[in-house]
Amino acid sequence: MKVHVEVKPKSGVLDPQGNAVLEAMRHFGLEARNCRVGKIIEFEIADGTIRREEIENKLHEVSRDLLSNPVIEDYKLQIEG
Amino acid sequence: MKVHVEVKPKSGVLDPQGNAVLEAMRHFGLEARNCRVGKIIEFEIADGTIRREEIENKLHEVSRDLLSNPVIEDYKLQIEG
Repeated sequence: MKVHVEVKPKSGVLDPQGNAVLEAMRHFGLEARNCRVGKIIEFEIADGTIRREEIENKLHEVSRDLLSNPVIEDYKLQIEG
Repeated sequence: MKVHVEVKPKSGVLDPQGNAVLEAMRHFGLEARNCRVGKIIEFEIADGTIRREEIENKLHEVSRDLLSNPVIEDYKLQIEG
Protein backbone atom coordinates (compact mmCIF):
# COMPACT_ATOMS: atom_id res chain seq x y z
CA MET A 1 0.00 0.00 0.00
CA LYS A 2 1.18 3.50 -0.88
CA VAL A 3 1.15 6.23 1.71
CA HIS A 4 1.29 9.95 0.98
CA VAL A 5 1.64 12.46 3.83
CA GLU A 6 1.46 16.22 3.27
CA VAL A 7 2.71 18.47 6.04
CA LYS A 8 1.95 22.19 5.82
CA PRO A 9 2.29 25.13 8.19
CA LYS A 10 -1.03 25.86 9.93
CA SER A 11 -2.86 28.87 8.52
CA GLY A 12 -2.08 31.83 10.74
CA VAL A 13 1.40 30.58 11.50
CA LEU A 14 4.15 32.73 10.01
CA ASP A 15 6.00 30.90 7.21
CA PRO A 16 9.43 32.53 6.76
CA GLN A 17 10.38 30.04 4.04
CA GLY A 18 7.26 30.99 2.09
CA ASN A 19 8.11 34.66 2.46
CA ALA A 20 11.63 34.01 1.18
CA VAL A 21 10.15 32.27 -1.87
CA LEU A 22 7.84 35.26 -2.53
CA GLU A 23 10.80 37.61 -2.33
CA ALA A 24 12.88 35.45 -4.70
CA MET A 25 9.98 35.14 -7.17
CA ARG A 26 9.74 38.92 -7.25
CA HIS A 27 13.29 38.94 -8.65
CA PHE A 28 12.05 36.61 -11.40
CA GLY A 29 9.36 39.20 -12.20
CA LEU A 30 6.52 37.20 -10.65
CA GLU A 31 4.28 38.95 -8.13
CA ALA A 32 2.69 36.33 -5.90
CA ARG A 33 1.23 36.24 -2.37
CA ASN A 34 0.30 33.86 0.46
CA CYS A 35 3.13 31.47 -0.19
CA ARG A 36 3.36 28.40 2.06
CA VAL A 37 6.08 25.79 1.90
CA GLY A 38 5.39 22.27 3.13
CA LYS A 39 6.69 18.72 2.86
CA ILE A 40 5.52 15.59 1.09
CA ILE A 41 6.56 12.21 2.44
CA GLU A 42 5.76 9.15 0.33
CA PHE A 43 6.47 5.52 1.13
CA GLU A 44 5.19 1.99 0.74
CA ILE A 45 4.09 -0.57 3.30
CA ALA A 46 4.03 -4.29 2.57
CA ASP A 47 0.44 -5.54 2.70
CA GLY A 48 -0.66 -8.20 5.11
CA THR A 49 1.97 -7.73 7.78
CA ILE A 50 -0.42 -6.18 10.31
CA ARG A 51 -4.17 -5.34 10.34
CA ARG A 52 -5.29 -2.42 8.21
CA GLU A 53 -6.85 -0.59 11.15
CA GLU A 54 -3.68 -1.02 13.18
CA ILE A 55 -1.59 0.32 10.27
CA GLU A 56 -3.81 3.40 9.98
CA ASN A 57 -3.45 4.15 13.69
CA LYS A 58 0.30 3.72 13.37
CA LEU A 59 0.39 6.02 10.35
CA HIS A 60 -1.48 8.76 12.21
CA GLU A 61 0.91 8.35 15.14
CA VAL A 62 3.94 8.61 12.83
CA SER A 63 2.49 11.59 10.93
CA ARG A 64 1.74 13.45 14.15
CA ASP A 65 4.79 12.58 16.24
CA LEU A 66 7.55 12.11 13.67
CA LEU A 67 6.70 13.79 10.38
CA SER A 68 5.05 16.98 11.60
CA ASN A 69 5.21 19.43 14.45
CA PRO A 70 1.55 19.63 15.61
CA VAL A 71 2.10 23.01 17.25
CA ILE A 72 2.72 24.77 13.94
CA GLU A 73 1.90 22.22 11.24
CA ASP A 74 -1.08 20.22 9.96
CA TYR A 75 -0.76 16.89 8.20
CA LYS A 76 -2.93 15.19 5.60
CA LEU A 77 -2.67 11.43 5.30
CA GLN A 78 -3.67 9.57 2.12
CA ILE A 79 -3.55 5.79 1.84
CA GLU A 80 -3.83 4.07 -1.54
CA GLY A 81 -4.55 0.42 -2.05
CA MET B 1 -5.20 31.89 -9.44
CA LYS B 2 -3.78 29.26 -7.11
CA VAL B 3 -0.50 27.59 -7.89
CA HIS B 4 0.70 24.30 -6.41
CA VAL B 5 4.24 23.05 -7.10
CA GLU B 6 5.44 19.63 -5.96
CA VAL B 7 9.18 19.01 -5.96
CA LYS B 8 10.43 15.43 -5.49
CA PRO B 9 13.77 13.69 -5.81
CA LYS B 10 14.09 11.97 -9.22
CA SER B 11 13.62 8.22 -9.08
CA GLY B 12 17.07 6.65 -8.96
CA VAL B 13 18.51 9.52 -6.98
CA LEU B 14 19.48 8.59 -3.44
CA ASP B 15 17.23 10.28 -0.88
CA PRO B 16 19.03 10.35 2.49
CA GLN B 17 16.14 12.20 4.13
CA GLY B 18 13.77 9.45 3.02
CA ASN B 19 16.10 6.81 4.42
CA ALA B 20 16.27 8.67 7.73
CA VAL B 21 12.46 8.68 7.86
CA LEU B 22 12.36 4.91 7.18
CA GLU B 23 14.82 4.33 9.98
CA ALA B 24 12.84 6.53 12.39
CA MET B 25 9.56 4.83 11.45
CA ARG B 26 11.13 1.48 12.28
CA HIS B 27 11.53 2.74 15.86
CA PHE B 28 7.78 3.44 15.84
CA GLY B 29 7.21 -0.20 14.84
CA LEU B 30 6.33 0.59 11.23
CA GLU B 31 8.19 -1.30 8.50
CA ALA B 32 8.09 0.78 5.31
CA ARG B 33 10.22 1.08 2.16
CA ASN B 34 10.93 3.39 -0.80
CA CYS B 35 10.50 6.58 1.19
CA ARG B 36 10.94 9.86 -0.68
CA VAL B 37 10.73 13.29 0.87
CA GLY B 38 9.77 16.28 -1.26
CA LYS B 39 8.46 19.82 -0.99
CA ILE B 40 5.14 21.49 -1.71
CA ILE B 41 5.07 25.18 -2.51
CA GLU B 42 1.68 26.88 -2.75
CA PHE B 43 0.93 30.48 -3.58
CA GLU B 44 -1.54 32.80 -5.27
CA ILE B 45 -1.16 35.11 -8.21
CA ALA B 46 -3.48 38.07 -8.80
CA ASP B 47 -5.46 37.52 -12.01
CA GLY B 48 -5.24 39.88 -14.91
CA THR B 49 -1.84 41.37 -14.23
CA ILE B 50 -0.13 39.60 -17.15
CA ARG B 51 -1.28 37.17 -19.89
CA ARG B 52 -2.08 33.62 -18.83
CA GLU B 53 0.44 32.11 -21.25
CA GLU B 54 3.13 34.44 -20.01
CA ILE B 55 2.34 33.51 -16.39
CA GLU B 56 2.61 29.79 -17.19
CA ASN B 57 6.01 30.27 -18.81
CA LYS B 58 7.12 32.29 -15.81
CA LEU B 59 5.86 29.60 -13.42
CA HIS B 60 7.80 26.88 -15.24
CA GLU B 61 10.90 29.08 -15.13
CA VAL B 62 10.48 29.67 -11.40
CA SER B 63 9.75 25.97 -10.69
CA ARG B 64 12.83 24.87 -12.63
CA ASP B 65 15.33 27.56 -11.64
CA LEU B 66 14.25 28.58 -8.16
CA LEU B 67 12.09 25.93 -6.51
CA SER B 68 13.83 22.77 -7.68
CA ASN B 69 17.26 21.48 -8.55
CA PRO B 70 16.74 19.93 -12.01
CA VAL B 71 19.82 17.72 -11.63
CA ILE B 72 18.30 15.66 -8.83
CA GLU B 73 14.66 16.77 -8.60
CA ASP B 74 11.50 16.77 -10.71
CA TYR B 75 8.72 19.29 -10.31
CA LYS B 76 4.98 19.08 -10.98
CA LEU B 77 3.11 22.31 -11.57
CA GLN B 78 -0.65 22.62 -11.03
CA ILE B 79 -2.54 25.82 -11.74
CA GLU B 80 -6.12 26.28 -10.52
CA GLY B 81 -8.50 28.93 -11.73
